[in-house]
Amino acid sequence: MNLQDAIKGRRSIRKFQNKPVSKELLTNLVEMAIWAPSASNAQAWRFVIATEPELVGKITTVSPGVIGDPPAIITVCQDMGVARARWGEQKAEVLACMDAAMASQNLILVAHEAGLGTCVVASFHGKSLQRILNLPETFQPELLISVGWPAETPPAPARQKEGVLFFEVYSE
Amino acid sequence: MNLQDAIKGRRSIRKFQNKPVSKELLTNLVEMAIWAPSASNAQAWRFVIATEPELVGKITTVSPGVIGDPPAIITVCQDMGVARARWGEQKAEVLACMDAAMASQNLILVAHEAGLGTCVVASFHGKSLQRILNLPETFQPELLISVGWPAETPPAPARQKEGVLFFEVYSE
Repeated sequence: MNLQDAIKGRRSIRKFQNKPVSKELLTNLVEMAIWAPSASNAQAWRFVIATEPELVGKITTVSPGVIGDPPAIITVCQDMGVARARWGEQKAEVLACMDAAMASQNLILVAHEAGLGTCVVASFHGKSLQRILNLPETFQPELLISVGWPAETPPAPARQKEGVLFFEVYSE
Repeated sequence: MNLQDAIKGRRSIRKFQNKPVSKELLTNLVEMAIWAPSASNAQAWRFVIATEPELVGKITTVSPGVIGDPPAIITVCQDMGVARARWGEQKAEVLACMDAAMASQNLILVAHEAGLGTCVVASFHGKSLQRILNLPETFQPELLISVGWPAETPPAPARQKEGVLFFEVYSE
């Protein structure tokens, strides 16, 4: 798929078909995600993909942002042990967020290309996720991505263009 | 350009030709960036693009992460007034980071498609940037993106594949 078509055609999907997504497809999403830049090349991102319905259900229970019964949920984590060692205490949180988000943008574009729908979710209870997913203490969930075959074709939200771009310095 | 070629072909560029980038091209980068998802559709992102050499030099002085004399620097900001109103105090910082980073991933992919080189920079002094760019108090710089015509073709850093992806729950 053409890059700009992928960028403009991707929607956030909140209604999914009751149909699984293959591990091969899900693996490819992660393989493309990690081509994003990583601050100081830390690559501290970790991806935990739930596809078993019972497990997906447990995640959903502690993640109000997950909507529409996706067959798979990707928990994008950062290994904060690696992150802090590479980036230092002060910058670790923001760089962890940034790296995870950039990789996730790749992931949702490639998912769209494959005909999959996704929704990036920031509303979840991290400590509960750590327990449910058996994560090491250092693994910090940064965001979730619902993945599945879309059962809706939502329109694109209008993009605000006024007051968004300024050349040289800000002016009213 | 094909999506996956763009994702895999993009490099972080730290050496640029002494040649300006047109405002038309730079504007298109931002127009594609804002097709990224935005939490609760806040679209609080703001882009300030410096192209005047003196201004670019001032930004570089307070941004140790900017390397290789780029002809343009995009300061990706969030209007934290809008962000806090939409997302609440508690979530505003992390969602501001996340939205800015996802939009930036779009931006650097589209830049690569246009033959431009970019480098995402998280090392800068925010308060100094606010002063230099005449930003309203609510505009918080989240990250910088150096933009220019590349004067190097760096190899891709190896991607770590072991211990990055887990299905269902984490296991050693």
